[in-house]
Amino acid sequence: MPTLLIGQGFDAHRFAAPGSCRPLWLAGLLWSAPAGADAAALAQYEGIEGDSDGDVAAHALIDALLSAAGLGDIGALFGVGAGARGAGMHGCAMLRETVSFMREHGYEPSSASVVVIGNRPRLGSRRAEAEQALSQAVGCRVSLTATTTDHMGFTGRGEGVAAIANALVRPLQARHAA
Amino acid sequence: MPTLLIGQGFDAHRFAAPGSCRPLWLAGLLWSAPAGADAAALAQYEGIEGDSDGDVAAHALIDALLSAAGLGDIGALFGVGAGARGAGMHGCAMLRETVSFMREHGYEPSSASVVVIGNRPRLGSRRAEAEQALSQAVGCRVSLTATTTDHMGFTGRGEGVAAIANALVRPLQARHAA
Amino acid sequence: MPTLLIGQGFDAHRFAAPGSCRPLWLAGLLWSAPAGADAAALAQYEGIEGDSDGDVAAHALIDALLSAAGLGDIGALFGVGAGARGAGMHGCAMLRETVSFMREHGYEPSSASVVVIGNRPRLGSRRAEAEQALSQAVGCRVSLTATTTDHMGFTGRGEGVAAIANALVRPLQARHAA
Ligand SMILES: [Zn+2]
Ligand SMILES: [Zn+2]
Ligand SMILES: [Zn+2]
Repeated sequence: MPTLLIGQGFDAHRFAAPGSCRPLWLAGLLWSAPAGADAAALAQYEGIEGDSDGDVAAHALIDALLSAAGLGDIGALFGVGAGARGAGMHGCAMLRETVSFMREHGYEPSSASVVVIGNRPRLGSRRAEAEQALSQAVGCRVSLTATTTDHMGFTGRGEGVAAIANALVRPLQARHAA
Repeated sequence: MPTLLIGQGFDAHRFAAPGSCRPLWLAGLLWSAPAGADAAALAQYEGIEGDSDGDVAAHALIDALLSAAGLGDIGALFGVGAGARGAGMHGCAMLRETVSFMREHGYEPSSASVVVIGNRPRLGSRRAEAEQALSQAVGCRVSLTATTTDHMGFTGRGEGVAAIANALVRPLQARHAA
Repeated sequence: MPTLLIGQGFDAHRFAAPGSCRPLWLAGLLWSAPAGADAAALAQYEGIEGDSDGDVAAHALIDALLSAAGLGDIGALFGVGAGARGAGMHGCAMLRETVSFMREHGYEPSSASVVVIGNRPRLGSRRAEAEQALSQAVGCRVSLTATTTDHMGFTGRGEGVAAIANALVRPLQARHAA
């Protein structure tokens, strides 16, 4: 088997409707409006839909990692729908469980990277914090970049947010007995 | 030369119009409606447009592999248009020919991964079968994940299907004399 | 630290309005209309908006490289807006500066790849030239592929152009003292 295996991941979710008061989780962090924000400012912190917390960065990373290890995808591991095992889970908890699952099957993450495509939140202002949260969850360096689409497409119109991730994993030196 | 080289691929095609009765090929497999399907169910199995069989997963993988090897892209290798050499070819046949071409030029695939973005077919139900077909065609592990875009964008509206792939290739130990 | 680290990049920009007479820079090259082109042909060479030259291929590669090295993203390195340090810079100059920055921090590019998604220009006609320009700027093999989206989405409607890139980087053998 090669010493390094590659995986690709993608995810996209819709922003919750204004007034949903759904917490905005993205890239492993909670993004909260500053104290005293008016309605327009609050709308910038409306959350992302999804059975779990809607963290597309974490979900794209999970698919990249599972794919590199040849172990399926996020839907197979966490289920789909309101009653699924992943329902209500945060992105970093899902990442930690993904990596445990990989280790049980003889793989460990080597490095990973994710691009978030969307108008909000402004990830650059907390990139170091987000990279630390994701890297701690995955157990290797995870890098984060962010970009917009110049008001084009569903991300540019602010309908939702997308993420593209890639990852390298390697076989564990001593494979788990299972 | 590095021992591992990376490549990126992307492809998108439109679904054929309802009633076209074009076979639906994707991720190396033929997706057929169950016996006795009514018109609405049959529409879920309408095929993908393209000079070849429209298999965006195979095409994105081909571009990722050729790109990693520095050997151009699918259009240069198979041509474009109804009279092209690739016209009517299935994705796995194109993948096999791509890998032969790479080997002739001194490269072999090491690992590869592809994400299919679209509403249908439901790839998860036959992931193992699709991964086996793609892996056999490429001659290394090829992983497949699938996701939707929450009804956003052209994939979410069901206009078409897209795929993002990545690949690692390595130089052959003994390079071909040519 | 692993010997190879992976990064992902993405970028998208809008085409300038017809009649803007903005030069079209993409994939490290200037794309000029043939002599004697009429208005319709000239419109095919209208440039891409952006503080810099709008070269989405170069920008996606920069984010892939910086991400692989864990050194932030293009916005942090070059700034954002008309007064930013990157304003007016060409893609290849930005790539060269990115690689210098990486080397100062102990990393060098190993290989990279970028897919350009858009209707124009027809990159295939000058792929070798573009790959040479990008590879010289980065200092390792950089591969380029190009595809369209069958008239779907913002790239298919000709509103703009997007690029997805990936890269492998490695730590320098002798790290810079800083
Ligand atoms: Zn998700
Ligand atoms: Zn295609
Ligand atoms: Zn840009």
